[in-house]
Amino acid sequence: MGKDNKVSFNLKTPKGTKDWAGSDALLRDRIFTTIANVFKRHGGTALDTPVFELREILAGKYGEDSKLIYDLQDQGGEICSLRYDLTVPFARWLAMNTDVRSIKRYHIAKVYRRDQPAVSKGRMREFYQCDFDIAGQFDPMVPDAEVLRIVTEVFEELGWQGRYGIKINHRKVLDGLFEVCGVPQDKIRPISSAVDKLDKMPWAEVRKEMVEEKGLDGEVADRIEKYVNLKGGRDLLNSLLQDEALVANASAKAGLDDMGLLMDYLDAFGVLDRMSFDLSLARGLDYYTGVIYEIVTEGSAPPAQSAEETPKPKSSKKSKKGSNGDDDDRSNDPTVGVGSVAAGGRYDNLVGMFQPKAQIPCVGVSFGVDRIFSITKARLERDQSADVRSSEVDAFVMAFGGKGFTGMLKERMSVCQGLWNAGLKAEFSYKVKPKLPQQFKAAEQGGVPFAVILGEDEMAAGKVRIKEMGLEDGHPEKEGVLVDLTALPTELKTRLDAKKSVAGVTQQLEQVTV
Amino acid sequence: MGKDNKVSFNLKTPKGTKDWAGSDALLRDRIFTTIANVFKRHGGTALDTPVFELREILAGKYGEDSKLIYDLQDQGGEICSLRYDLTVPFARWLAMNTDVRSIKRYHIAKVYRRDQPAVSKGRMREFYQCDFDIAGQFDPMVPDAEVLRIVTEVFEELGWQGRYGIKINHRKVLDGLFEVCGVPQDKIRPISSAVDKLDKMPWAEVRKEMVEEKGLDGEVADRIEKYVNLKGGRDLLNSLLQDEALVANASAKAGLDDMGLLMDYLDAFGVLDRMSFDLSLARGLDYYTGVIYEIVTEGSAPPAQSAEETPKPKSSKKSKKGSNGDDDDRSNDPTVGVGSVAAGGRYDNLVGMFQPKAQIPCVGVSFGVDRIFSITKARLERDQSADVRSSEVDAFVMAFGGKGFTGMLKERMSVCQGLWNAGLKAEFSYKVKPKLPQQFKAAEQGGVPFAVILGEDEMAAGKVRIKEMGLEDGHPEKEGVLVDLTALPTELKTRLDAKKSVAGVTQQLEQVTV
Repeated sequence: MGKDNKVSFNLKTPKGTKDWAGSDALLRDRIFTTIANVFKRHGGTALDTPVFELREILAGKYGEDSKLIYDLQDQGGEICSLRYDLTVPFARWLAMNTDVRSIKRYHIAKVYRRDQPAVSKGRMREFYQCDFDIAGQFDPMVPDAEVLRIVTEVFEELGWQGRYGIKINHRKVLDGLFEVCGVPQDKIRPISSAVDKLDKMPWAEVRKEMVEEKGLDGEVADRIEKYVNLKGGRDLLNSLLQDEALVANASAKAGLDDMGLLMDYLDAFGVLDRMSFDLSLARGLDYYTGVIYEIVTEGSAPPAQSAEETPKPKSSKKSKKGSNGDDDDRSNDPTVGVGSVAAGGRYDNLVGMFQPKAQIPCVGVSFGVDRIFSITKARLERDQSADVRSSEVDAFVMAFGGKGFTGMLKERMSVCQGLWNAGLKAEFSYKVKPKLPQQFKAAEQGGVPFAVILGEDEMAAGKVRIKEMGLEDGHPEKEGVLVDLTALPTELKTRLDAKKSVAGVTQQLEQVTV
Repeated sequence: MGKDNKVSFNLKTPKGTKDWAGSDALLRDRIFTTIANVFKRHGGTALDTPVFELREILAGKYGEDSKLIYDLQDQGGEICSLRYDLTVPFARWLAMNTDVRSIKRYHIAKVYRRDQPAVSKGRMREFYQCDFDIAGQFDPMVPDAEVLRIVTEVFEELGWQGRYGIKINHRKVLDGLFEVCGVPQDKIRPISSAVDKLDKMPWAEVRKEMVEEKGLDGEVADRIEKYVNLKGGRDLLNSLLQDEALVANASAKAGLDDMGLLMDYLDAFGVLDRMSFDLSLARGLDYYTGVIYEIVTEGSAPPAQSAEETPKPKSSKKSKKGSNGDDDDRSNDPTVGVGSVAAGGRYDNLVGMFQPKAQIPCVGVSFGVDRIFSITKARLERDQSADVRSSEVDAFVMAFGGKGFTGMLKERMSVCQGLWNAGLKAEFSYKVKPKLPQQFKAAEQGGVPFAVILGEDEMAAGKVRIKEMGLEDGHPEKEGVLVDLTALPTELKTRLDAKKSVAGVTQQLEQVTV
């Protein structure tokens, strides 16, 4: 098993992957829990699919990005690939389970893309997605509105009130608008892709791409400009409904009617004010057929930079942090666009690609957890609530004594037992005779809020001391409070609850937890 | 994207993998939550490693089972393989992070083995493991005892009280015992493997393997028999300490001293009565260096069958359920033995295989969740608490009315909004004008406990009706109770809490949940 004096292992994780440990892992798990709780509140049911699929299931779903799919080696047997997203496996499952005619499913899992990683930007080869989708034949825009309501609940429970915005648009409005402007049918998707870049580049550049690269008539492009600069709410919808040319187009009219219904429903759900009807939102993926949306937040967009400046300033300082140092600026995640933290839309034809008879309309959203994690962590650190701990221990049980002190190991174990039995989280030193400062240090390092201190005389009298960590000199409980051993769990719970309800910082973290 | 009238997709998951959906997924998630909560109560911190590792990291760790490792295709770049367990990635992480000198880490994740699947037995190519390990240099047997305490908490919170047993043994006792019996040094591991089969075959067969296959002297085998039939508690320990030959062996003596300490500590933790010191337990993996344990439960062992009977009765009925029909009886999961639902032990030398300077002693346990799931599910079904639902919705918000009824869609949405804001789980029909029976049917199918019924006159008066589903005729609240709309969340919460505390069946499920 390897020679002791010669280690030839390359001790690292594969390129574009990382380990999640300590407080990062805990914060990420809290984000998962928050998101999953919202999904469950809306009747979401969990679906878990294998990490790899038969290769033919993934084939022909991702266009030119198919080259980014990880293949398993052919070791005899089936040919498989790692999943690229959670949407295609969901569609495969719906096509296989034809008795399921409607479902709200959620899925929180890793997906794999053999892309050029950019660790400093959070673009990894292995990363998590949190997806919620509603499949089924329903009255128009009702499930669509609920998905958007879910988006608001997720971000508000993550503590992002007022710090995020939801852009919405409709593929039918967009397609109709292009027709009205005079875009030839075969150029609609390429022109749509060009429009989608308006959040990253100015109109002049997008126009150049339309006219010079994609051969669009300059006048047509100018007509498009008039529309795609429009953003608003019901006011915008009403003014578009006054646009006779637009309303005369069947696709645009159908899309606008949908948007009207959607706004009514978002109003009934109390979240219309978070939405911006934005005609520049186009979304990359071909399979969307109805409403589309993208959630942006302060700091989620790349730093503003005019087109005149040097196009690619290497941020060498950041790059060094990535284990491979090969960051680049290419962005090609089709699910979550640059600057967005979640995105989605209606896709009514994907299931039918597997099984035409099993066709089911779907609408859903995908949360980009890695980016949400980075922003949440930065905010917690900025707000100096940086005490994101790596464990959640409530109490550290310790002992001290004078000459001939035995260490009271079994007593510490027994007290821990009582706390565990009461559902409390407790730790103790694994040393037989630990020194008191060592025990306090361990509790401090773990950010443990309370010490439970055992002394020989006090134990003999059936008493232990509860001491809140980090109290200032002069605090009445600075030296701790002596309580009956039998009352310890209750006394500790009372203090934990009190601490939680006082500390604003803790509240903020709790918000992420609950 | 594919011709509509010709579907060439093979609609299935890869061999040995499956989708988890509906009530199965929910029950499995509850088991994960139960286990993770116990881990956290003991100060466990989460570690998440990539699903694939550099191939050289896995090489030389699994002996002849290395052939079961899934390799990724070489697409240019690093050569990687899917992880085979969670222990080797943990050891790799410890070797990489040399600043971490002690940690309690847990990891709940899928592992991959290109084995012959036996779906009916729950042996899959992709399956979950739940691992908890304590790494660090501590006083003897203290962390070992806490790991065993964790095992008891997990199974008791899963509702398995009195239905499981924990076998413990010690590698040093076993090695010393073999030496004392006269097993040559180079035969100790092979003879140990033979002993490990005593839970599946009678002594006569094991003896035959020792003598005929492994060339052991028959008299030595007979001396071994005297020991490996021994099971007990402190009584057994005390009688072994009277065995002069055994105590004269340094390894056996060290192991017995450890066992004595362990029993003291397990006593302090209040769980000594669940343990059985069992000298026939040997465990397959080479890397164990100290205490070893295996958790067995009624029904986790294969059906008893004497060696004289036909050795391999094909259970053709069961095999059909497996999607590939290629079940076989070979068992080669080294982490969780046949008949066991969890297993583990101390392994002090694994981290040093990666980085001798980073050597850290470790002790841990791995829970086989797929088997725990199957047994828990069967028990819930047997106990007729088969209402394991696929979602957790508290209330279905519905409306009805007479002639000219509008469907009250926005009112239903708005009432749902109020429930969601209060953290309650609520659903409503996505139809504009749903019929009342359809709405009740949807609530029944989802196992939703309460209906919230909107009527036009009642809404005008600011009232809604709460109706508990499934009440018998004659129950005072059979027709529901009219409450103020503003009080709805509180009234519903009160009823949900009352329902939970009454129903024994629900309690049992809650036990799995909390």
